Amino acid sequence: MMNFRSDNESGAHPLIVEAVARAFASGPAFAYGADAWTQRVEQHLREIFERPDLVAHPVLTGTAANGLALACCAPPWGAIFAHPTAHIASEETNAPELFTSGARIFRIDGPNGKMDIKKLSEALAQPIYGVVHFPQPSVVSVTEASECGTIYTREEIAAVATCAREYGLKVHMDGARFANALAFIGCTPAELTWKVGVDVLSLGATKNGAMGAEVVIFFNSQLAREFEFRRKRGGHLLSKMRLLSAQLAAYFNEGLWLDNARHANAMAQRLAAGLTSLEGTSLLYPVDANEIFTVLPSHIHDALRAAGAQYHARPSGQPGKRAFRLVTSFDTDPADIDSVLAVAKS
Amino acid sequence: MMNFRSDNESGAHPLIVEAVARAFASGPAFAYGADAWTQRVEQHLREIFERPDLVAHPVLTGTAANGLALACCAPPWGAIFAHPTAHIASEETNAPELFTSGARIFRIDGPNGKMDIKKLSEALAQPIYGVVHFPQPSVVSVTEASECGTIYTREEIAAVATCAREYGLKVHMDGARFANALAFIGCTPAELTWKVGVDVLSLGATKNGAMGAEVVIFFNSQLAREFEFRRKRGGHLLSKMRLLSAQLAAYFNEGLWLDNARHANAMAQRLAAGLTSLEGTSLLYPVDANEIFTVLPSHIHDALRAAGAQYHARPSGQPGKRAFRLVTSFDTDPADIDSVLAVAKS
Amino acid sequence: MMNFRSDNESGAHPLIVEAVARAFASGPAFAYGADAWTQRVEQHLREIFERPDLVAHPVLTGTAANGLALACCAPPWGAIFAHPTAHIASEETNAPELFTSGARIFRIDGPNGKMDIKKLSEALAQPIYGVVHFPQPSVVSVTEASECGTIYTREEIAAVATCAREYGLKVHMDGARFANALAFIGCTPAELTWKVGVDVLSLGATKNGAMGAEVVIFFNSQLAREFEFRRKRGGHLLSKMRLLSAQLAAYFNEGLWLDNARHANAMAQRLAAGLTSLEGTSLLYPVDANEIFTVLPSHIHDALRAAGAQYHARPSGQPGKRAFRLVTSFDTDPADIDSVLAVAKS
Amino acid sequence: MMNFRSDNESGAHPLIVEAVARAFASGPAFAYGADAWTQRVEQHLREIFERPDLVAHPVLTGTAANGLALACCAPPWGAIFAHPTAHIASEETNAPELFTSGARIFRIDGPNGKMDIKKLSEALAQPIYGVVHFPQPSVVSVTEASECGTIYTREEIAAVATCAREYGLKVHMDGARFANALAFIGCTPAELTWKVGVDVLSLGATKNGAMGAEVVIFFNSQLAREFEFRRKRGGHLLSKMRLLSAQLAAYFNEGLWLDNARHANAMAQRLAAGLTSLEGTSLLYPVDANEIFTVLPSHIHDALRAAGAQYHARPSGQPGKRAFRLVTSFDTDPADIDSVLAVAKS
Repeated sequence: MMNFRSDNESGAHPLIVEAVARAFASGPAFAYGADAWTQRVEQHLREIFERPDLVAHPVLTGTAANGLALACCAPPWGAIFAHPTAHIASEETNAPELFTSGARIFRIDGPNGKMDIKKLSEALAQPIYGVVHFPQPSVVSVTEASECGTIYTREEIAAVATCAREYGLKVHMDGARFANALAFIGCTPAELTWKVGVDVLSLGATKNGAMGAEVVIFFNSQLAREFEFRRKRGGHLLSKMRLLSAQLAAYFNEGLWLDNARHANAMAQRLAAGLTSLEGTSLLYPVDANEIFTVLPSHIHDALRAAGAQYHARPSGQPGKRAFRLVTSFDTDPADIDSVLAVAKS
Repeated sequence: MMNFRSDNESGAHPLIVEAVARAFASGPAFAYGADAWTQRVEQHLREIFERPDLVAHPVLTGTAANGLALACCAPPWGAIFAHPTAHIASEETNAPELFTSGARIFRIDGPNGKMDIKKLSEALAQPIYGVVHFPQPSVVSVTEASECGTIYTREEIAAVATCAREYGLKVHMDGARFANALAFIGCTPAELTWKVGVDVLSLGATKNGAMGAEVVIFFNSQLAREFEFRRKRGGHLLSKMRLLSAQLAAYFNEGLWLDNARHANAMAQRLAAGLTSLEGTSLLYPVDANEIFTVLPSHIHDALRAAGAQYHARPSGQPGKRAFRLVTSFDTDPADIDSVLAVAKS
Repeated sequence: MMNFRSDNESGAHPLIVEAVARAFASGPAFAYGADAWTQRVEQHLREIFERPDLVAHPVLTGTAANGLALACCAPPWGAIFAHPTAHIASEETNAPELFTSGARIFRIDGPNGKMDIKKLSEALAQPIYGVVHFPQPSVVSVTEASECGTIYTREEIAAVATCAREYGLKVHMDGARFANALAFIGCTPAELTWKVGVDVLSLGATKNGAMGAEVVIFFNSQLAREFEFRRKRGGHLLSKMRLLSAQLAAYFNEGLWLDNARHANAMAQRLAAGLTSLEGTSLLYPVDANEIFTVLPSHIHDALRAAGAQYHARPSGQPGKRAFRLVTSFDTDPADIDSVLAVAKS
Repeated sequence: MMNFRSDNESGAHPLIVEAVARAFASGPAFAYGADAWTQRVEQHLREIFERPDLVAHPVLTGTAANGLALACCAPPWGAIFAHPTAHIASEETNAPELFTSGARIFRIDGPNGKMDIKKLSEALAQPIYGVVHFPQPSVVSVTEASECGTIYTREEIAAVATCAREYGLKVHMDGARFANALAFIGCTPAELTWKVGVDVLSLGATKNGAMGAEVVIFFNSQLAREFEFRRKRGGHLLSKMRLLSAQLAAYFNEGLWLDNARHANAMAQRLAAGLTSLEGTSLLYPVDANEIFTVLPSHIHDALRAAGAQYHARPSGQPGKRAFRLVTSFDTDPADIDSVLAVAKS
C-alpha cells in the first residue's frame, strides 16, 4: 500500500474510533454540545494550552473551522492576509467570503509557503485605515505547518503577529497540521500560539488520525462571542456533538496527537533522506512536517508508478522537470517507505 | 433512563457504529466522497427510491441539508414557503438566508403543524411574478414528519406540490424524520416523494439511530448542479467522507432505518395510549410519528419528574394548562414507557 | 392630470431642482461627501432634531436607507420585527437580507397598518435570547406614516420603543413619508423620533418633492460606526454627493418639507371628504397622511376611469367589493381633486 | 482654480443639468424606469452601439454598476480576474463580494495598468474547472480607460476576450472613463466592446460631465435576466428614474459625451507635454486618457502647491522621487493648464 497521495486518505487511529464507539454506546447525552465529552475537551485544552480562559468549539471540517474563525475576526468590509498557498486563499472555494459575508483575501507571497514579513509589512502600511474606499485590514492568517510542508519558527510567527498587532489586526492560525508543527519544533502548544501572538487557532485532527474533527480555539475570548451563532447558522452545530468531541478527547489523550504527528514527520524524513540521495532528485522545499515536494527524474517516477506507488504531481517551476508531492501519515508503514526507496534506487 | 427529551439525545445503533469502525479500519480511501461507501450509498438510494437518475450527497447536519437544498431552489431574491413550526422557519437561525444568500421565508400556517393548502394557494396567487419589488416565490418546504409529530398524507403532499407546480415553484421536503413518516404511512419511499411531486429531500438519519448523518437527495438532477460547490464553500465537504457514508450505508441496509422508525413510532403509540387514558391529559396533535405533545395535570407531571422522567415543556395554548413534549427514539426501552405510565397512573 | 397613482410619479419641487442646478454650476467640490452641502445638511438636521450629536448620511433610495440602517442594528443571525405591510417586509425584495447578510424579518400584524403592541410584546417575550437555535431579536421597525396611510401617535411609538428596549432591541423608523406624519401630528421632529425612543430614522424626501434623496439619521451614534463602510460596499456612496445633499438642503430649508407634506395631506383630506360623502364608498383605513384606501362602487370607478383619473386597485378584503388607493402629492392641484369629485358625484 | 485632484470633483455639464431640470418640470411620469426618458436612453444606446438587442439599465454609481454587472457573470463560488489597480480590485471595498454573494477577485498584474495577457492565460489554464475545491473562473474585467490613465487597444481587448472565451468566461468592461477611451482610439462604441468580445459594460457618465449616472449595458442579453432583481434588492432602483435617465439622455445626445472626453483628453495632453519638457519630471505611464502620473522634482511641486494647484500624491516606485496624479476633466479650463505650466517652468 504505497499510498502517499494525502493524509486525508488515511483511515483513523483505533483509539479514536473506539472512543467514538464507546461514546455512542453509553446511552443518551445532552444535545448540541452540552454533553460531557465536549465539556471535557474544552477543559483539557485549557490545560494543554495553559490558558484557563480559552474557548474551544469543535467543528467537522477545516474549511468550516477557518471560515468561522475568520468571520469572528473580519467584518464584511475587511481584508484578510495570507500566503497564496494557504488553503483559505487557494483551496476552500470562497468559504471565507461566505462565512465573513464578503471579506476579501489578499495574498502575501514569500518563499517556502511562508509569508514574507517585509511584504506583509508593506501591505499593512498602506494609508487606508478608516478610509471607506478600501477593504479594512482585519486579520492575518498563518498556516502552520504550511501547505509546502514547511513550518514557521516561533520567531517568524511572533514577527507576523507583531506586525499585525501594530496595525490592529488579529492573528489566525490554520493549524490543519498543527501537531506536525509542534512535534517538529518541540515547544509547548502555548509557545507556538498565544505566547507568540495568535488569537484564534483552527486545530485539525482529521489529517492526523481522526475520522473527521477539528476544533476552533479562541485565546481572545472576546472574539468568540459570535462564534456559536455563526456555527449554528452555518449548519455546523451537531445535535450529537459527541461524534466530534469523543474523537478530540481521544486525540488529545496521553499525547496521541503528538505521537501520531511524530510518526508522520519521521516517515517523511526517512522518505526524503532516501529520495534526495538519488541522482536527479531535488526538494522544492525543506521537509519540516509530513509533506515532501520533490523533483523526480522520469525513470524513477515511472518505476514507482509501475510498482504501484501513489502520489500527486505538482508544478516544479523548473522547465523540463516534473515535481511531485508525497505525503506521509500517522499510519504510514515504514516498510512502505523502504519499498518505495528500494524501487526508486533500482 | 426515562429520557424523553429528544431523539437527538439518543446514542447510535450498534450496526451503524460498527460500520463506521470497520470503514476506518480498512486503510486508505479516496478523499472527498470519491470513496466506495459514498458511491454505494448513492447507488443504493437509487434502488430504494426507484430512480436510477437521482443524485445523493451526504452532509453532517439537518440544518446544512435544508440550507443547501433550498439554495439550489431559490435565488437571493426568492421566497420560500413553510409552516411556522418548520425548522427552517423557527429553529435554524437564519441558515436558509446564509445558504441562499438572502432568500426570505414566508410562513404558511395551518393546523397540526401542516400548511393549510388554501392559505398556501392564496399566498402563491399574488400577482407578483416577475415584478421586481417582490420576493419571487421559488420553493415550498414541507416537513415530513412535521415538528408537531404529525404526518402529511401522500394526498396532502401531492396537493402542496400541485399548487407549487402551478406557479413554477420547486418542492423541498425536510425529512429529518422521514423514516418515521414512511413507517407510519406504509408506502414506498418513491410514493412519498417524487411520485407526489417532491424535487429534493433532506433525509435525516441522525434522529433515528445514526451518530450524525443526513443525505440530500435530488430527484430533479438539474437542481443538483450547483450543490457540490455550495457544499464545499459551506465547509460541509468532508475529506474522509466515509464517516458519513458508512453510517448511511448501514442505515439503509436491510431496512434498519425503517425498523428503527417503526420501533420509535410504536413506543410513541404505546406511551400516548397510556397517557390519554388518564384523566386530565389531552393530546395537542395526533400522534403519527415519534413525538407526543400532551397536556398533563400538575400532579402527574410532578410525579413523573420526581421519578426522574425527562421531557421538555411546550406552550399548551390553553389557559391554566401545561403541555409537554415527549419524544421516543429507535432505542427507547418499552420498560421505560411502562415505568412512565406506571408512575403517571399512580 | 388626475394622476393619483403614486407620489413616486410626481415631478420635483422647483426649489429643489434649482438648488441642484446651482450646486453643479458652482465648480469643483470635494468628492464623496466631504463637500459643503453635505456638511451643511448634517448641521441643519442637528438643529432641526435638537440633537447636536446626530449623524446623518444621504442615500439615494428608501430601499437602501432601510437596508443600510437595519444592517447597523441587526447581525446576520438577527431578527427584525415589522408590520406585514411595511416596505421592508413586503416590497423591497430581500434588500434587508442583503444588507444585513441574512437577518430575518418577522411580521407583527395589527389593524390599520400598525403593529399590535400586544403581538409585538408576545413575540419578544419568547425565551430565545442567547439560544443559538433561534434568530436573535435585534430591531423593531415602524413605518411612519404607515403604508396604509395611517400614522402612529407619539404614544404608540413610545409603546413600541419601550417594549423593544425592554428586550434590548433597537428601534428603526422607516420615514419615507415622515414629513406627512410630522405635519399631521404637529409635533417637533425630535418629539416623533428620539424623544419617543427611535434610534435610527430613514427620512425620505423623494416622495415629497425631491428628485431622489433620502437621509439616514442616527440618534444613537454608536450605531453609525459601520454605516459608511456598509454604504460604500453597497455602491451607495456618490462621488458627487451634492446631487443628493443639495436636494436635501433645499428640502429642509425654511420648512419646505413640511409645506409640501401639509399640502399633500390637505389634498388627501379634501379628496377623502368628498369621496366618503358618496353612497357606496367606504374607507379601508383612516386617512392620516396622503394616501386614501377606499371601496368604490363600480359606477363611480368606471366614470372616474373614463374621465382619465388614474389610481391603483388594492384588495378590499370584502367579498364583491373593489377597493382602490389614491395618493396625493406635494404638487397635487386642488382643481384635480375637484374634477375627480365632480366626476364621482355625477 | 487649478484643481487637478479628480474628475469626481467637477461640477456637471450645463446641458445635463438642464435636461434634468426639464424632466422634473414636466409633471408625473411612470415610476421605476417605466418613464419615457429611460426607454429612450436604451433605444438610443441600441443605435449608438449598433445592437438592437442590447439591454441597458441606469444606476447611480460606478461601484454599483460594476458590482451588479459582475453578479450577473459570477456565482458565489466564482473567480473574477482583474488588474490590481482595477477599482473592483483596489477601491470598491468588497462591493463585488457583496453583489456576487462571495465571488473572489484574482489579480492579474501587468505594466501600465493593463493585464498581462500571458499571466491571464496562465491563470486560466489551471486545471481547476469543475473541481469543487477551487473558485471557478467566471469573468475577466478590463478597465477602459485603465486606472493608470492608459487605454487598452482594440487588439488587446480582443486578446483578453479570446483568452476568456477559451475557458468559458465572460468579459466585463469597467468603462468609468469609456468615453475617454473611445475619444482616444477613435473607433465606434461597437468596435471597442461587443465586436471585440465584451459581454457587459459599466459605462460611466459621472466622471465626464454628469451629476451622477452610469449605465450597465448587456450585449449578451441572457446575462441581463437577473439584473433587475439584483438592482432592486441592492437599493439601486430609483422610483423617479428620470433623475438618472435624463442625465444619460443628454450625455449621449449629439455626441456630448465624446466632446467632453475629447476636451479632457486634450487638456491632459497639453499638460503632459508641458510638464515633460521640464527637467526632472518623468511620466509613470503613457498619457492616453485624462490622467497624468508624473514624477515632479520638489522645487516644482512646492511652487505648484504654493500657487494653489491641487492634485494627489501617488507612489513613484522610485527611491527618493515623489510622484503625483493630475486629472483633467470635461470642464478643465485651458488657462488653468497654462497657469500650472507657467508656475512649473518658473
